[in-house]
Amino acid sequence: MKSSLECHIFRLLPKTDLLESLKTFLIHENISAGCILSCAGSLNPAVLRLSDHDYGTYYDRPVEIVSLSGTVSTEGCHLHMSIADEEGNVMGGHVLSGSKIYTTAEIVIGQLPELKFTRQPCLISGYSELIISKTLT
Amino acid sequence: MKSSLECHIFRLLPKTDLLESLKTFLIHENISAGCILSCAGSLNPAVLRLSDHDYGTYYDRPVEIVSLSGTVSTEGCHLHMSIADEEGNVMGGHVLSGSKIYTTAEIVIGQLPELKFTRQPCLISGYSELIISKTLT
Amino acid sequence: MKSSLECHIFRLLPKTDLLESLKTFLIHENISAGCILSCAGSLNPAVLRLSDHDYGTYYDRPVEIVSLSGTVSTEGCHLHMSIADEEGNVMGGHVLSGSKIYTTAEIVIGQLPELKFTRQPCLISGYSELIISKTLT
Repeated sequence: MKSSLECHIFRLLPKTDLLESLKTFLIHENISAGCILSCAGSLNPAVLRLSDHDYGTYYDRPVEIVSLSGTVSTEGCHLHMSIADEEGNVMGGHVLSGSKIYTTAEIVIGQLPELKFTRQPCLISGYSELIISKTLT
Repeated sequence: MKSSLECHIFRLLPKTDLLESLKTFLIHENISAGCILSCAGSLNPAVLRLSDHDYGTYYDRPVEIVSLSGTVSTEGCHLHMSIADEEGNVMGGHVLSGSKIYTTAEIVIGQLPELKFTRQPCLISGYSELIISKTLT
Repeated sequence: MKSSLECHIFRLLPKTDLLESLKTFLIHENISAGCILSCAGSLNPAVLRLSDHDYGTYYDRPVEIVSLSGTVSTEGCHLHMSIADEEGNVMGGHVLSGSKIYTTAEIVIGQLPELKFTRQPCLISGYSELIISKTLT
């Protein structure tokens, strides 16, 4: 589905929770459909749910956020991230709460004002999946 | 070159081909210039052409898409991707056909309506490379 | 803070410096606030400052850029990148000068025309950090 785009940018301070701060921002700005456009920052620790797992894996050391991507909405976020450690090794997965900002995180969100994202159980995948609808205007 | 931006978002279902579904979408929406803005999803298998290779490498296990980036057009796509496996290890390269959606892929495309992308052989790189031109209005 | 978005796209030629070319482009187009929206390309060598380091690490072999993300401005850039080598291994960190284009780099920048980015020392992180302000109109 199609929409125009408006941008939001903010910086997160050390020790704040990446995912919880994002959710608070989405509610405050009433963003019912959007996506991550760009991010540079660092975390310590980082918490990822790895592929085919149902629990989180902790990375208890300073890591750079080298990619953050996915959809956001007041109804839920689906974000994947890759992080790089002191040796340059990169790990990746699904972003969970508990990832704390180390020095900074500069985040650019694209809001899709004509759309609304919700999530509903999907019989094909077996998970709660993205439903995209037009906002009433 | 400069352009305004319009957004398209869609979800791909399990077992569909990532690159072929994207191409079908670009033709259906007649997108002659655009780029990937954001993506969260999973694949099984994933197929990447690794750096300095001329053939594909298969990853025959469930992986998360942790980054998908590059340019798209009805005249051709140039997409790079990184994927993360069950241990969080990340692999990356050039996206090839054969990568199949595992549970979902939420993809946000930015369309550049004032531009048109084509590809022509480049004497400097030795490859077919991106040519950017203004659309006639 | 909120802004509309305008897009710029360009291709970098082999042997040009990724970061220096970006800075030249930002000055030429007078972009005082923006971010990387998408990128596909390759480097040889690539230079990254790894997490918790204060010097650069060289990767002296052809690598694919699999993600490039962060904020850009005539007043400074903050870019993180992940790169993939011939075996698909991914390394990541903070982008430094010295990374040279191998075959191509297709880069899409989003300009936020209502905003201006500067950098000022931050007492909390101990580093020079992003300050976002409205442009006077």
